[in-house]
Amino acid sequence: MSRAEYVVGVDFGTLSGRALVVAVDDGREVASAESVYAHGVVTDALPGRPERRLPPAWALQVPSDYIDVLRTAVPEAIRQAGIDPADVIAIGTDFTACTMVPTTADGTPLCEVEGFEDRPHAYVKLWKHHAAQPQADRINALAAERDEPWLSRYGGLISSEWEFAKGLQVLEEDPEVYAAMDRWVEASDWIVWQLCATYVRNAGATGYKAIYQDGRYPDTDFLTALHPAFGGFVDDHVDQPVAELGEAAGTLTAAASAWTGLPEGIPVAVGTVDAHVSAPAAQAIDDGQMVAIMGTSTCHVMSSSVLREVPGMCGVVDGGIVPGRWGYEAGQSGVGDIFAWFVDHGVPPYVHEAAAAAGVTVHEHLSALAAEQAVGEHGLVALDWHSGNRSVLVDHDLSAVVLGQTLATRPEDVYRALVEATAFGTRTIIDAFGRSGVPVEELVVAGGLVRNAMLMQIYSDVTGLPLSVVGSAQGPALGAALHAAVAAGAYADIRAAAKAMGSVRKAVYVPDEERARAYDRLYAEYVTLHDYFGRGGNDVMHRLRTLRDDASRSRGGAR
Amino acid sequence: MSRAEYVVGVDFGTLSGRALVVAVDDGREVASAESVYAHGVVTDALPGRPERRLPPAWALQVPSDYIDVLRTAVPEAIRQAGIDPADVIAIGTDFTACTMVPTTADGTPLCEVEGFEDRPHAYVKLWKHHAAQPQADRINALAAERDEPWLSRYGGLISSEWEFAKGLQVLEEDPEVYAAMDRWVEASDWIVWQLCATYVRNAGATGYKAIYQDGRYPDTDFLTALHPAFGGFVDDHVDQPVAELGEAAGTLTAAASAWTGLPEGIPVAVGTVDAHVSAPAAQAIDDGQMVAIMGTSTCHVMSSSVLREVPGMCGVVDGGIVPGRWGYEAGQSGVGDIFAWFVDHGVPPYVHEAAAAAGVTVHEHLSALAAEQAVGEHGLVALDWHSGNRSVLVDHDLSAVVLGQTLATRPEDVYRALVEATAFGTRTIIDAFGRSGVPVEELVVAGGLVRNAMLMQIYSDVTGLPLSVVGSAQGPALGAALHAAVAAGAYADIRAAAKAMGSVRKAVYVPDEERARAYDRLYAEYVTLHDYFGRGGNDVMHRLRTLRDDASRSRGGAR
Repeated sequence: MSRAEYVVGVDFGTLSGRALVVAVDDGREVASAESVYAHGVVTDALPGRPERRLPPAWALQVPSDYIDVLRTAVPEAIRQAGIDPADVIAIGTDFTACTMVPTTADGTPLCEVEGFEDRPHAYVKLWKHHAAQPQADRINALAAERDEPWLSRYGGLISSEWEFAKGLQVLEEDPEVYAAMDRWVEASDWIVWQLCATYVRNAGATGYKAIYQDGRYPDTDFLTALHPAFGGFVDDHVDQPVAELGEAAGTLTAAASAWTGLPEGIPVAVGTVDAHVSAPAAQAIDDGQMVAIMGTSTCHVMSSSVLREVPGMCGVVDGGIVPGRWGYEAGQSGVGDIFAWFVDHGVPPYVHEAAAAAGVTVHEHLSALAAEQAVGEHGLVALDWHSGNRSVLVDHDLSAVVLGQTLATRPEDVYRALVEATAFGTRTIIDAFGRSGVPVEELVVAGGLVRNAMLMQIYSDVTGLPLSVVGSAQGPALGAALHAAVAAGAYADIRAAAKAMGSVRKAVYVPDEERARAYDRLYAEYVTLHDYFGRGGNDVMHRLRTLRDDASRSRGGAR
Repeated sequence: MSRAEYVVGVDFGTLSGRALVVAVDDGREVASAESVYAHGVVTDALPGRPERRLPPAWALQVPSDYIDVLRTAVPEAIRQAGIDPADVIAIGTDFTACTMVPTTADGTPLCEVEGFEDRPHAYVKLWKHHAAQPQADRINALAAERDEPWLSRYGGLISSEWEFAKGLQVLEEDPEVYAAMDRWVEASDWIVWQLCATYVRNAGATGYKAIYQDGRYPDTDFLTALHPAFGGFVDDHVDQPVAELGEAAGTLTAAASAWTGLPEGIPVAVGTVDAHVSAPAAQAIDDGQMVAIMGTSTCHVMSSSVLREVPGMCGVVDGGIVPGRWGYEAGQSGVGDIFAWFVDHGVPPYVHEAAAAAGVTVHEHLSALAAEQAVGEHGLVALDWHSGNRSVLVDHDLSAVVLGQTLATRPEDVYRALVEATAFGTRTIIDAFGRSGVPVEELVVAGGLVRNAMLMQIYSDVTGLPLSVVGSAQGPALGAALHAAVAAGAYADIRAAAKAMGSVRKAVYVPDEERARAYDRLYAEYVTLHDYFGRGGNDVMHRLRTLRDDASRSRGGAR
């Protein structure tokens, strides 16, 4: 019997990175370790520079935190696995997206270059950096005016989260940083570059976030029309060889071997996007299967044999999730972080005390109370736009609503209403796919929120769909490991690797007919408010945003 | 030099009663004492009967709590004053309204009659009992259909808080209690009945709450059309001699003298409504002076020489506030209790801890943080309908909205938005008066919220009016005492008593021009949402209420 072979998948999330050691033959998860980013998400002021305060909607990261994951979590996972590192045949990674690193020609992040440490635009722009909305608005207006052929591939709207809006923001707000920047790199590719000293773009992020369709980026004319100095953006900063998912980008360098303790020269898989890579990990890459990766935010991905234009989707990309299929993506920019925000800033002491007395988290306590309620009993309906709306409105200047409070409203009522609002948001997306000819028949869920049974049941009742659950607690890391196995040649393709290494528990939650009917009533209210506030019936949220920003500016940008 | 003479005013509020000893010659407040109602506001279950749960929107009280105020607060105030009780020449009272006591012919509350202790309808229905909305809706629909002449005197809508809606609810939901009930008594008259053994109705409550206009109640035809058994409601349960404000209802009985320690035989002033009686206490009984009594809820009262029909006002009554003038009333059914609810159920531990560390209340802490903000900086707008809307929509099935939250929203932001929402509610009322030909030129504020300078300044900035503040910290009790002085003949009329005994600090807060302009923008958003959700643009709140009540019923009425 030959020795067992292993792959390592490293999942770079919003707050931490996690390394997973996986057996190549059956996807068995042997051990994992986590490394929390020392600088987390930078929203208030630059690290160590409290005087460099950030405007509203900014979200930065520090790239050395990512390297720390390679240095600590990977060796720790190997140690815990108790395996010989020599038995690791490849490494794969997945990353949040669109998360952008401005670098020099050799990949050094600009924030590490002397003289740029105190320039906010020299740092990593995390996916949820939402301050490029004005740039996104102009990109969308111009693309619509010029009838750009790629626009419909993105549901008709380019997000402020993506490469072009964020890049244009750098140019317009800090031209010196823009001038010093050689490469404008997806973090998913930057981490692979660090591992194998080769910079190749992955087909997924390039298609979804860099407006790369049918072998072309937006043209120079278009870019110049956005800003005279932006015409060279693609040629000078973005363009790079594009590799299919599951290929090897290169092999592990001596330096990266020293960080990780893995053998020099093993294949390094092409970078992947965290949400997408969960789909093969959950064996959900066929028509009708929507994967929802539910954590801080929710990403919805779907592979299909047909190409359709879905309004408000984030994008459809040929080979974007698995080579040979149309990969669809949609998303909700705030989900788990809404619940976390509510627990941190909206839940009174007596609830914290009751949770502590019961030995559970506040989330668990509120969920248990909320689970006892009949549908509609709390009298509330909410819009889940605390972090704006990605799909289907693609507008990050929207904000939240809670409606129906009385003096009898209690924290568990609001908690449940917020959970429901995110479920309604998912249903809105599923409805848009169905109306566009890409029907959803099964929801396969992954991510941290799958542990909340109250929430899962609500999602099933609201959508009327069976909910399957990814078998792994670490879907993205497993997906990254699976890509490593393919890059190493252990499997012919991602489909074969998914069959052997992926896992899913089918129909763990099924809708209750009576509750589903009651939710139809509540969902109708959600839709009415969604369209009224989100489609121009009452543009109050944009006006409030302007008023807020005016007030903030008049006080020195403290917010 | 003759000995000083004193009067006692007793203010019966929502949670407690307060006795104030006042010098007759100059209104000097010598001492006061409070008695908190042992049973408070009964909303969940009957006292001592946890199995007798109450449906949503119920709010009851226990009448013996009121007698306890006479037994404890009055003698304690006299003791603290260090005066000879023999120098007290009269007693006056004021009460919340419309608060209704079902009694036998001798005034015994039905809940004290054997066999009725476990019947919710045998208890006092507090002003904020909002469960008679279906009855109010039918009263309004029928009155509009029949074009009843009295309807316009109430802004076109009769409130669910008032005598007829609450009485009809008793008949329809517990006909046995209705049959056992001889008198349906305003608590303001019931307490006077207990003091002097004479039941006279006061002109204020009778006009405002019992639809008594031009010497007539709604007629038997109308009542019979509401319900066949309701035709005798006025003749059998409501009708009673009506006395002008400032008259004596009778003299203190031996029993009441024993409770209070006051001399038997001194005049007992006709009952008054707490909000109304604050107006003479603040010397605000002239045209253009609106008095806002801001506490748990806010009541707006205004005396005028002209009769106009103001849409959504609570009522206009000849001599309703002072004899000889048209007394206008409007109101907001939730104000201070919204802030209290928020602090109790929506403010996280770190805020409570910071307040405790600073040695201030949570309200003070949040107010201090909120006071630092520029107008609109929080990005929020709210509707202050947690307890429904009294003026100008007269709809207690409405509920609240908070709009504009992001993950950066903090408790002080919501707190300020809620304060602003109540200020916008007041401006809505002021605007309605102005448009109807009863312009408001000065806002005279009284009640517990005057202590919050942040809130007061916001009210001035939002309304664009100077805010004067009642001189007494206990406006209603002073007003009650002032009525006692008139009843004792110490002054010719209320106007003369107000001049000698009332007090006000003029223009304590004045609007800031820049903030007022910014608030015009926010107020416009409030008005749009107010009309959209309150005037039928989107009837979501009523549908959510129906869904809630259906869900609650299906679970056994726990809510």
